[in-house]
Amino acid sequence: MAIIAPSLLAADFLRLWDECKMINESEAEWFHLDVMDGRFVPNISFGLPVIEHIRKTTKKECDVHLMIVEPEKYTTAFKEAGADRLTVHYEACTHLHRNVEMIRQLGMKAGVALNPHTPVLLLKEILPYIDQVCIMSVNPGFGGQQFIPTSLKKIAELKQMIRESGYPVLIQVDGGVSVNNAAALVNAGADVLVAGSNVFKAENPTAAIAQLKKAGSFSEV
Amino acid sequence: MAIIAPSLLAADFLRLWDECKMINESEAEWFHLDVMDGRFVPNISFGLPVIEHIRKTTKKECDVHLMIVEPEKYTTAFKEAGADRLTVHYEACTHLHRNVEMIRQLGMKAGVALNPHTPVLLLKEILPYIDQVCIMSVNPGFGGQQFIPTSLKKIAELKQMIRESGYPVLIQVDGGVSVNNAAALVNAGADVLVAGSNVFKAENPTAAIAQLKKAGSFSEV
Amino acid sequence: MAIIAPSLLAADFLRLWDECKMINESEAEWFHLDVMDGRFVPNISFGLPVIEHIRKTTKKECDVHLMIVEPEKYTTAFKEAGADRLTVHYEACTHLHRNVEMIRQLGMKAGVALNPHTPVLLLKEILPYIDQVCIMSVNPGFGGQQFIPTSLKKIAELKQMIRESGYPVLIQVDGGVSVNNAAALVNAGADVLVAGSNVFKAENPTAAIAQLKKAGSFSEV
Amino acid sequence: MAIIAPSLLAADFLRLWDECKMINESEAEWFHLDVMDGRFVPNISFGLPVIEHIRKTTKKECDVHLMIVEPEKYTTAFKEAGADRLTVHYEACTHLHRNVEMIRQLGMKAGVALNPHTPVLLLKEILPYIDQVCIMSVNPGFGGQQFIPTSLKKIAELKQMIRESGYPVLIQVDGGVSVNNAAALVNAGADVLVAGSNVFKAENPTAAIAQLKKAGSFSEV
Amino acid sequence: MAIIAPSLLAADFLRLWDECKMINESEAEWFHLDVMDGRFVPNISFGLPVIEHIRKTTKKECDVHLMIVEPEKYTTAFKEAGADRLTVHYEACTHLHRNVEMIRQLGMKAGVALNPHTPVLLLKEILPYIDQVCIMSVNPGFGGQQFIPTSLKKIAELKQMIRESGYPVLIQVDGGVSVNNAAALVNAGADVLVAGSNVFKAENPTAAIAQLKKAGSFSEV
Amino acid sequence: MAIIAPSLLAADFLRLWDECKMINESEAEWFHLDVMDGRFVPNISFGLPVIEHIRKTTKKECDVHLMIVEPEKYTTAFKEAGADRLTVHYEACTHLHRNVEMIRQLGMKAGVALNPHTPVLLLKEILPYIDQVCIMSVNPGFGGQQFIPTSLKKIAELKQMIRESGYPVLIQVDGGVSVNNAAALVNAGADVLVAGSNVFKAENPTAAIAQLKKAGSFSEV
Repeated sequence: MAIIAPSLLAADFLRLWDECKMINESEAEWFHLDVMDGRFVPNISFGLPVIEHIRKTTKKECDVHLMIVEPEKYTTAFKEAGADRLTVHYEACTHLHRNVEMIRQLGMKAGVALNPHTPVLLLKEILPYIDQVCIMSVNPGFGGQQFIPTSLKKIAELKQMIRESGYPVLIQVDGGVSVNNAAALVNAGADVLVAGSNVFKAENPTAAIAQLKKAGSFSEV
Repeated sequence: MAIIAPSLLAADFLRLWDECKMINESEAEWFHLDVMDGRFVPNISFGLPVIEHIRKTTKKECDVHLMIVEPEKYTTAFKEAGADRLTVHYEACTHLHRNVEMIRQLGMKAGVALNPHTPVLLLKEILPYIDQVCIMSVNPGFGGQQFIPTSLKKIAELKQMIRESGYPVLIQVDGGVSVNNAAALVNAGADVLVAGSNVFKAENPTAAIAQLKKAGSFSEV
Repeated sequence: MAIIAPSLLAADFLRLWDECKMINESEAEWFHLDVMDGRFVPNISFGLPVIEHIRKTTKKECDVHLMIVEPEKYTTAFKEAGADRLTVHYEACTHLHRNVEMIRQLGMKAGVALNPHTPVLLLKEILPYIDQVCIMSVNPGFGGQQFIPTSLKKIAELKQMIRESGYPVLIQVDGGVSVNNAAALVNAGADVLVAGSNVFKAENPTAAIAQLKKAGSFSEV
Repeated sequence: MAIIAPSLLAADFLRLWDECKMINESEAEWFHLDVMDGRFVPNISFGLPVIEHIRKTTKKECDVHLMIVEPEKYTTAFKEAGADRLTVHYEACTHLHRNVEMIRQLGMKAGVALNPHTPVLLLKEILPYIDQVCIMSVNPGFGGQQFIPTSLKKIAELKQMIRESGYPVLIQVDGGVSVNNAAALVNAGADVLVAGSNVFKAENPTAAIAQLKKAGSFSEV
Repeated sequence: MAIIAPSLLAADFLRLWDECKMINESEAEWFHLDVMDGRFVPNISFGLPVIEHIRKTTKKECDVHLMIVEPEKYTTAFKEAGADRLTVHYEACTHLHRNVEMIRQLGMKAGVALNPHTPVLLLKEILPYIDQVCIMSVNPGFGGQQFIPTSLKKIAELKQMIRESGYPVLIQVDGGVSVNNAAALVNAGADVLVAGSNVFKAENPTAAIAQLKKAGSFSEV
Repeated sequence: MAIIAPSLLAADFLRLWDECKMINESEAEWFHLDVMDGRFVPNISFGLPVIEHIRKTTKKECDVHLMIVEPEKYTTAFKEAGADRLTVHYEACTHLHRNVEMIRQLGMKAGVALNPHTPVLLLKEILPYIDQVCIMSVNPGFGGQQFIPTSLKKIAELKQMIRESGYPVLIQVDGGVSVNNAAALVNAGADVLVAGSNVFKAENPTAAIAQLKKAGSFSEV
């Protein structure tokens, strides 16, 4: 049964209070917050002051996805803004081990995200030190993109690696997730489903979350 | 009589609809939107998706202040998000003339911002091509900082340069602006007063704007 | 039977018309055009205006090899200059999947080049989305260097990966290619042979191309 | 009487031999060679191998304009490629004095180029150590742009500075130079006129050079 | 029997003559010199002038570990300062093969260092061209850190790769090395033990080196 | 009467204890410590661990000159290492005012250094916030270079600016300072003389300092 983490990138930024309330009352377990700096990715989304406010509305887990360069510069600031989970990109970190250790020392769960072209075998040495891997199933930077189909195989391969390693690392999928592929993703090994447009652009977001939750619970395994 | 441009950096991001409504019904003429990328300044504030939403709430001028590196990468995107005025930093632009020309060609008013240490004489060649100069009277990156007192003299010096040049360039002051220094700023030459915390952290923001407007209208000149 | 792609890096830049005519009338199938920006590689070769001109002389495929950082900034420009095939470097791309998708969406064939030290296993996730891989058998930046012998094994390993993947991806070899190693390269799995100095510094370039073509057709496989 | 320096950026790159011959037989005194790296300016033009070839065709002065970052990395290489004069950009040099000293120590004349927005007063400390200043009268990166009219005043101001300094520094103008503004430029203080499209796109380039030469010789001063 | 390479990062910089004398008279075979530039790692340690002086005190091998970006800029300088062995970081080199070839051409032994998160399989193509691999068993930048336990497995995996390759490449371990883990490290495959604080902060550094030497010689293999 | 600040860049790094003792017992008032990161300048000298040790030997003022990029990253670390005065480069600081405020808030005196080509008029806005200006009279990066003669006029111009401003800012001269130009420098306005090779390469460094002190005290003004 997958954890559902709606991404607020597609929310109505004029009424975040209502959007947060909706998530709080929904079946979603986490808030997924996409921070983009215009450097690592070709978009600038939102950052610290917005997250600080969102944090005040919820007791659910705030899962912050840093699509930024030099994430070590802002690790403490995001902790203070309220992040419970902090994910950095493999492609953005020269000292990935130091980064995830710092995240954990500050009391957060540590995640590593992989761009679509980055193979999971590069995670071999870091798996023992992290709590989650975020498989980007679209290129990071924008909402509303189409799911990259080879991501399924990538998730399965990562699941295998994690099982063999014995470390309790969650697999998160981010990009193009919908009720149409949720079951397949969970079957491949996904533990957390991030969904943006498919939740917030739905007529009934609460129902969309419930459907995703349901779709993500019909695991064959 | 100075134009008042409340900066939404200090707004309640959970209720932007209400905050925008307040500005719309206030005496403020412009919305001031502070975009920070975590690279040019040590903070990540908000960017395109947030501004797109704010744009929908107002017919007042959206004055976007880019505290980002390589602003040319995002000039078109900010136009599309709804900017009427776009200000780039002198310190961030290798090709400042190209940048402001591009802003104007897209139909926006072009501004150049100066960090506190940057002297106004560096604007000599660019004055004919811009609509406004933003004098940073605090170091950009955070709200709630104290006004740097030598900014007054800097504004006066710039006013003199602009008068001699004959170009109709507005002077905007950003940082630590309050009812206490508004009159002095306007007397020194300021045409636009940006205020963040002193508006949004006030008990009555609408009244705070009105007071600022009033304070900024007692010009001796 | 390998495709021959003469690299114009070693051509006579005073008489490109004649050099292009020679290739057009030779057995070579592609023009290989090496763009160097002085940043990704320690040399600045030639770029857009030169390629635009070369494009006008030929109906053969223009295969442009970008040895530049941030290739996404110039993808559209190289399409407009006439590139049919556009290769970017693995080491230069944070968002490799986005880059090759953009190349294909513009109607070009997409390639990924690997520096000598970069292992082929890093291509695992990108193979389904590309048309060719360029194995650098010298360090990129200069013509006339000696072939790195371990490249043969690398080509063979990549061939194996491609066969197993089932995707129709061509293997291109670039650096120190000559009649002496052409057969071995093709036997190892090379589909496209790039040759610069060994063509243009030859007494009879047309004949050199023919010899390379012949050498590259004695495949044992 | 101004020196004429045709810029080969607008030449026919398929027939550089003929283009160079034309300049050699014309009234032009210098070859102007625009090197662009895609980093300092948003274009990649041509570099070392092209200049090496051009050098062989002429005994006229080769005036190389580096629109590149970190020009110190390539100073020696451009000397070896045949540059007689090497110009670096003020905006690209952290150690401008070191750069121009290195250029002179290698036996070349040293120049500093200014982007349109950069005021001439920034040259105060470097004037004693250079041979020429290049005033960009368009934004560097592309040929065929329109002359920025305030450049005239900038040239006049620089001329005044140079006269007062007593150092024999030439003023070069680059961008939108034509027979229409040549006289005005020379009157303002220009010593060297760079012209690209207005020479090479003319029906008769030799005549265009002669006309420019003539227009640039009717100085009022 | 492992080679012992004391790292002078933890030495008394006021009395380097004495510290070097101590190493010279000890059982240590190499001097290990950690150069940090404040860019690749978050510390600035020491560089060329310090190493030049140390070089004069010893005939033992000077093993210089460059924790710097763009090491190619300083390769020749470190040779001239007296390095016998020069190690660059995998994560810092776009053209790793060119870098190690340059090191060897200058007459030094070439090494590649891996940050804790970097898997050894990335060394596949470079192994034939290097003399040593430095496995960082702490995050580079500071002395006195705790050994990362999964480094043992990483060493064993690398040892296996080297054996299979047939190339005579030494494995060096750097970070948290002490008498407590020296035997385990050597058993896993380490050939060279770097030790800093555990030598220089010991009451008797000469004895500490001897103990390390002894601990590193009880190999089970 | 000028303050003498010997630069340890030219000291014997094997015997820093003795070198520091010599300065302590000399007429020199400050220790000048040149930190180079290989990025801002083309040399890597020494950094935090070396300065920490030097600090322990003296009660004289430790004047640290940061020839590094992004000095804000290391401001606190240099304070902790023992700096009393911290100088950053104008050319290295996007937020110069913030940097010097941070230095002062940590209890250090703040300085700004200018490369030879940087005009003093750029200091106009920062003078009220700093304690000293370092005029580089050679290009930073190496000891033993020749004094750039136009530095004298630059010092005089800065002295004039400082007098007119009324702020108590010291002028420091760094590069090629010797008994031959000390008097001229002080007459031009220098308050602090930095000397490296001319002290430490002298037969009698203590005497060299005394001579410099004496030469620097014959001010005509």
